[in-house]
Amino acid sequence: MKQTYIREISKYVGQEVVIKGWLYNIRYSGKLMFPQIRDGSGIIQGVVFKKAVSETVWKGFESLTQESSIIVKGKPREDSRAPGGFELDISDLEIVQIAEPYPITPKEHGVEFLMDHRHLWIRSKRQHAILRIRAEVIRAIRDFFDENDFVLCDTPIFTPAACEGTTTLFECNYFDDAKAYLTQSGQLYNEATAMAFGKVYCFGPTFRAEKSKTRRHLTEFWMVEPEIAYATLDDIMELAENFITHIVTRVLERRSEELRVLERDTSKLEKIVPPFPRLQYDDAARMLKEAGLAFEYGSDFGSPDETFLSSQYDKPVMIHRYPAQVKAFYMEVDPERPDLALCVDVLAPEGYGEIIGGGQRMASLEMLRKRIAEHNLPESAFDWYLDLRKYGSVPHAGFGMGVERCVAWLCGIEHVRETIPFPRMLYRLRP
Amino acid sequence: MKQTYIREISKYVGQEVVIKGWLYNIRYSGKLMFPQIRDGSGIIQGVVFKKAVSETVWKGFESLTQESSIIVKGKPREDSRAPGGFELDISDLEIVQIAEPYPITPKEHGVEFLMDHRHLWIRSKRQHAILRIRAEVIRAIRDFFDENDFVLCDTPIFTPAACEGTTTLFECNYFDDAKAYLTQSGQLYNEATAMAFGKVYCFGPTFRAEKSKTRRHLTEFWMVEPEIAYATLDDIMELAENFITHIVTRVLERRSEELRVLERDTSKLEKIVPPFPRLQYDDAARMLKEAGLAFEYGSDFGSPDETFLSSQYDKPVMIHRYPAQVKAFYMEVDPERPDLALCVDVLAPEGYGEIIGGGQRMASLEMLRKRIAEHNLPESAFDWYLDLRKYGSVPHAGFGMGVERCVAWLCGIEHVRETIPFPRMLYRLRP
Repeated sequence: MKQTYIREISKYVGQEVVIKGWLYNIRYSGKLMFPQIRDGSGIIQGVVFKKAVSETVWKGFESLTQESSIIVKGKPREDSRAPGGFELDISDLEIVQIAEPYPITPKEHGVEFLMDHRHLWIRSKRQHAILRIRAEVIRAIRDFFDENDFVLCDTPIFTPAACEGTTTLFECNYFDDAKAYLTQSGQLYNEATAMAFGKVYCFGPTFRAEKSKTRRHLTEFWMVEPEIAYATLDDIMELAENFITHIVTRVLERRSEELRVLERDTSKLEKIVPPFPRLQYDDAARMLKEAGLAFEYGSDFGSPDETFLSSQYDKPVMIHRYPAQVKAFYMEVDPERPDLALCVDVLAPEGYGEIIGGGQRMASLEMLRKRIAEHNLPESAFDWYLDLRKYGSVPHAGFGMGVERCVAWLCGIEHVRETIPFPRMLYRLRP
Repeated sequence: MKQTYIREISKYVGQEVVIKGWLYNIRYSGKLMFPQIRDGSGIIQGVVFKKAVSETVWKGFESLTQESSIIVKGKPREDSRAPGGFELDISDLEIVQIAEPYPITPKEHGVEFLMDHRHLWIRSKRQHAILRIRAEVIRAIRDFFDENDFVLCDTPIFTPAACEGTTTLFECNYFDDAKAYLTQSGQLYNEATAMAFGKVYCFGPTFRAEKSKTRRHLTEFWMVEPEIAYATLDDIMELAENFITHIVTRVLERRSEELRVLERDTSKLEKIVPPFPRLQYDDAARMLKEAGLAFEYGSDFGSPDETFLSSQYDKPVMIHRYPAQVKAFYMEVDPERPDLALCVDVLAPEGYGEIIGGGQRMASLEMLRKRIAEHNLPESAFDWYLDLRKYGSVPHAGFGMGVERCVAWLCGIEHVRETIPFPRMLYRLRP
């Protein structure tokens, strides 16, 4: 008989179905047993009535351990008291495998233990919910750009030169003693594809060899980066606003069950609608000063600064026009204040910090050459990038959003390590 | 005035629009000029009538070089003789930048020259068409799995141990002298997530340090890999068939214009409907023998073998049940013929070779341990993988499809290097 998935069980009320899955939990009550069965699509509570099944089936259920793989036959029935709204009256059982004693039990486990057992930990309700939200966020991201006529242009993972210093780059042995470096951002390549396709995005893993152990850092994380020819800073601020709202709305619509499992306060997410507050760097700096924080004008914001600023708003706040000196060499400058970069960072609410960084890119060949020299970068490494300013240079802008930080915020969880199936961190390469 | 994209020009017939783009080409004819303008979304032919524009505008057009960036104002008009079906009566011009002499001209260029100028080459009609088809293929892949309730679970790029020998693995310096290896496949991790989510897929870049210079090899390429708990070889053969058909249908529907640019014989693609021919390895071996090819029974197929076999059919052919000894250690064996693996390779027609490889995975802990020992692999490297056979092991199966080979086939092009924006090969790390 064909397998029925638990998430579709409501379509089969009163009909005999076959569920293939694992024993999540089981309760005994005299002549009744209540096995909870999961199949990856959901969890359903079964009812085994001693008089209604063969002795083999009854004894079979008695022998089951947590995570044993089983195939059960039964009829789903509506029951408003049941967790998913349905129960399964079980008539038959096939045991695929009795599991060895399962290491992850309902008792508390330490983080390192759980991380060592990540390949099993992902079967638990909470991790399941987080990773389904992650998948939904990624789908929402792609749908947003695809439906708005952006062309997906994958940028390379292997990059040739360590242009901006090797300290946070992972070095890789290529062929014949050559070295390659793993990408930190697809942006420079995005600028080339934007000149070919107008509106583009790249979306893939990026790598930062930072020796930091904060709750916001992974060495390997996924980033989506749109880039638009003929766009200005204002254009991409509006895009970021609509983009974030689209993702939040989608997750609220389609992942309410998972948000409930995570006990997420969704009223906070429902407030995320355009327009988002816009704050110039100068004003943000003044706010920090007035609040008594030890912030030095002209520097980048630290974690406590970001936390303070984002806590002033119940929506993401867009901070723009940072001093050019703290930003990357390719940032366009404000024609009215050449000491400021036409850039924007978007800070998520509730203290989640920066989730988006972007801005307008420098269009002038002469200015860009000057900035490369000022930053002591080798111009030869940028020859192809400079070409983009020789052959029909145009104003253009874009941003990057880290998926894991966005997911952590939407889920309302403390640490990004739970937002990706197999996190990679300073001391974590396994499983 | 708001920018109008050329692909939407049919909505604005008779209205004044602003196009922001680049000069693709220009023809002069006395008191008329016919500039072709591209904006990434399409190309439109403009008409500049000397008497209808100011002298500045006329002279401006005269001064334009190929790829100069321009903003033009005009009214679109239907014209069945025009390439896209519309022409633009131009009234105004703003020159953003006069481009330096563009290196890629209509004359023939060598492959190395074009690859060195890949950041500009992608602006050409043919590359544009290929990369749009690539984007469509990727979207079709994701839609297929998302709409069929597969959960996207990203698998890691950094992997800890060089389990199957380091010869084709890229080695990377991690922290404190540790080494990490770039993933060749997400499959082992997929098996863990399939036990948690039932139906999963991963989709990301994969890496092979092969010193081969064939037209089918890249060192960095994108692979999509579905995996299903409780699935058998037959299940995933049916899945592969529907999956490929879905992609081909989508590209035919939405990228007919691009296929036309590439002069693709679409009648060949229209034949791609289920069922696909299924051929057992033994029968394939016999066919090769009868055709007089120097093929040794028991070995894997070489490129000429694949070309011969695929040329016998006008659909992809699914070759299943290879000798277990030529396949990976984790392949399930056929219970009726334990010398055969329950695996399948799908060969694309027209000599494009293998685009899909997959099969059923070994479910038994004891058998798997035995195979690991037989393959002289260190069991310790697989401790977490073996866990999946201890805690509710189930039959399961999946496959992997390389995006670039699929795109090359659909586009009908010779070499995979044109199917990705910035190809990485043995001697190619730039731009």
